[in-house]
Amino acid sequence: MIDQGSVGIVKTQTCTLVRPPETLILENRLELGPITVAYETYGTLNAARDNAILVIHSLTGDAHAAGRYSQEDKYPGWWDPIIGPGKPFDTDKYFVICCNNLGGCKGTTGPASINPKTGKPYGLSFPMITMGDMVEVQKKLIDYLGIKRLVAVAGGSSAGMKVLEWGLRYSQRVDAIIPIATGYCVTPQGIAFHKVAQEAIMADPNWNNGDYYGRQPPEKGLAIARMIGHITYLSDHSMWEKFGRRHLDPEKMKYDLTSPFEVETYLEHQGEKFVRRFDANCYLYLLRAMDIYDASQGYSSLEESFRRITCKTLVISFAGDWLFPPYRSQELVRALQANGAYVEYYNINSLYGHDAFLLEYHKFGPLIRRFLARISGEPDERHADELHEYEIAPSEGLLT
Amino acid sequence: MIDQGSVGIVKTQTCTLVRPPETLILENRLELGPITVAYETYGTLNAARDNAILVIHSLTGDAHAAGRYSQEDKYPGWWDPIIGPGKPFDTDKYFVICCNNLGGCKGTTGPASINPKTGKPYGLSFPMITMGDMVEVQKKLIDYLGIKRLVAVAGGSSAGMKVLEWGLRYSQRVDAIIPIATGYCVTPQGIAFHKVAQEAIMADPNWNNGDYYGRQPPEKGLAIARMIGHITYLSDHSMWEKFGRRHLDPEKMKYDLTSPFEVETYLEHQGEKFVRRFDANCYLYLLRAMDIYDASQGYSSLEESFRRITCKTLVISFAGDWLFPPYRSQELVRALQANGAYVEYYNINSLYGHDAFLLEYHKFGPLIRRFLARISGEPDERHADELHEYEIAPSEGLLT
Repeated sequence: MIDQGSVGIVKTQTCTLVRPPETLILENRLELGPITVAYETYGTLNAARDNAILVIHSLTGDAHAAGRYSQEDKYPGWWDPIIGPGKPFDTDKYFVICCNNLGGCKGTTGPASINPKTGKPYGLSFPMITMGDMVEVQKKLIDYLGIKRLVAVAGGSSAGMKVLEWGLRYSQRVDAIIPIATGYCVTPQGIAFHKVAQEAIMADPNWNNGDYYGRQPPEKGLAIARMIGHITYLSDHSMWEKFGRRHLDPEKMKYDLTSPFEVETYLEHQGEKFVRRFDANCYLYLLRAMDIYDASQGYSSLEESFRRITCKTLVISFAGDWLFPPYRSQELVRALQANGAYVEYYNINSLYGHDAFLLEYHKFGPLIRRFLARISGEPDERHADELHEYEIAPSEGLLT
Repeated sequence: MIDQGSVGIVKTQTCTLVRPPETLILENRLELGPITVAYETYGTLNAARDNAILVIHSLTGDAHAAGRYSQEDKYPGWWDPIIGPGKPFDTDKYFVICCNNLGGCKGTTGPASINPKTGKPYGLSFPMITMGDMVEVQKKLIDYLGIKRLVAVAGGSSAGMKVLEWGLRYSQRVDAIIPIATGYCVTPQGIAFHKVAQEAIMADPNWNNGDYYGRQPPEKGLAIARMIGHITYLSDHSMWEKFGRRHLDPEKMKYDLTSPFEVETYLEHQGEKFVRRFDANCYLYLLRAMDIYDASQGYSSLEESFRRITCKTLVISFAGDWLFPPYRSQELVRALQANGAYVEYYNINSLYGHDAFLLEYHKFGPLIRRFLARISGEPDERHADELHEYEIAPSEGLLT
């Protein structure tokens, strides 16, 4: 199963970054500890310890960004097409790190973890966490790995918010940030979709105010919540392409209220798959962390806030993305440009909606490769051939 | 409370259009009866009985399109700004009719009505109904009122599908149709949103397979279903305008998973309001009727199907509508133009999303007025002054 350019067989590692009596002081001044983190690394950290790149997973992802767990493993990591030897995040050059975010349920401390004070899962007793708190835990991991300076921090969707936060908090320790298909905050429409997801989970009779561990979890509610998510990840166009109005049994459709169209079967499948791998409380905490994130908070404008970003930036958006439409990326670009920061921006022609950041590798991969080359002082020409094959539509007047 | 140009105090009337032993043979060959219909009329039917216009309500609307029920009534009918003396649907000229659709719960027979065979509400024993079935019931009402020919049939959103169906079935009895913010079918994305609504209702512990009459109805599920609807009726832009990211208690937000943003409070309010006025089974049947509607069905193309439309057509879309985006209206226009039919099309600049057909009266009202004048052979010039005040962006190459 191991394809060319793969990082090969990988293993998730675990470390405890916050140990008693130490705790992490969260943004809301509450304390959390101990904190364990699951992470993976690809490539080799050089002697100078200055070739590391942090990639961040989006909402419900995990530390498994590249490679496979075994020869038989059917699915590689979530960003495998762009992480590996010779790939844009070139593991022949870079030491790539990915960890499960704080609040997740894939090896890093979150609401489903055991609260050592009670011996039971936290559930709703888990403190509210923020994008900033997640970044602090990532920073602790980087320190733990003995890395003083990162070449880049990259990620799409909600991960893009953490990428921005790295730029805001630790520009002096990062050469570059690569926020993809994201924004400085969630739109009211985004909050509204999250609200419906939250309501669906909390309306599930098995929800029990988050105290469902060891019994039937709120699977139906969580599945519905996930269905909503999937609608926002695809686009009108991609749904036409993928499902059209195909119905499994057009005759039955005339008599049966629930006889499904293909798109409905897809959503059901996505919902079922999700409840097998994810925890409802974690989903609620992570959605909320997105909702309350606002990179302009505490400043009179986004521009003023972004004065703290002194590292270089590559911003990428996708034309067909309606969850984080291009204008959200352009807000970032304008605020960075206003401060005279180095910023490259590309709006990629894609009809695949928000999911494009997990699909259109051949379009945005080369941009990442060239950007990393440029910030290392390598000549631009090197990848010129590769680039003209892709449809790139830099938004007028915004490309630097 | 009665404003100028109002049709004044109105009363909903009821008639039984299908009486035993007669039944209505539905599109799926099942039989339904008796059928009672709630309707309102505004203006006066002339001696020739040829000045009638049928306006159709959208998904969860009712027969109360204009006027108020009493002097104290705070809210007028749902299309009041364009129905009345001197208004676009001018009741000094026209006799305007609106009825509650088949399958509804506002006086017309639907799943919440008593099944005379059992003495209990139908619930899920109500047969599946279609847009065509709803049109047949409207047609029976028109016959009942002694009207041989309608000046126009008009409606927005799912009502627009019934408007199209009038053109397809009864072009010889209609001078013109006015489908607004609609399409010849629901998109896969639309079906997906309906799916989530359906799941939310059916996951409610009070759902009880639709047999909840006389006990606690599935209010929570229905409220969630409605929240999803409201997100699709508004737009990203209108949500920024209306709510932004305002939060009722920013301090509490840091500690509380459910402390609401304003947009969430709005959705909660809409959900609560809706469950007081609507029935969950009706909602499911009406969503499904939308899902399964396809005006091209049985024909090799939409164009071929639309050969049956020989009446004149005014198609209106709204630029900011993402539930029925302008391309959906343009599909209608192209299919009509291909047959050489008389069609006027306007894509109206509006940032208010799908709801624009219930908001932007000053923009689309004059278009309706002019269209009705034109098809009556009145000179175009008459309303030229009125028109240039509005921002109209006819889609390039589509305006006839």
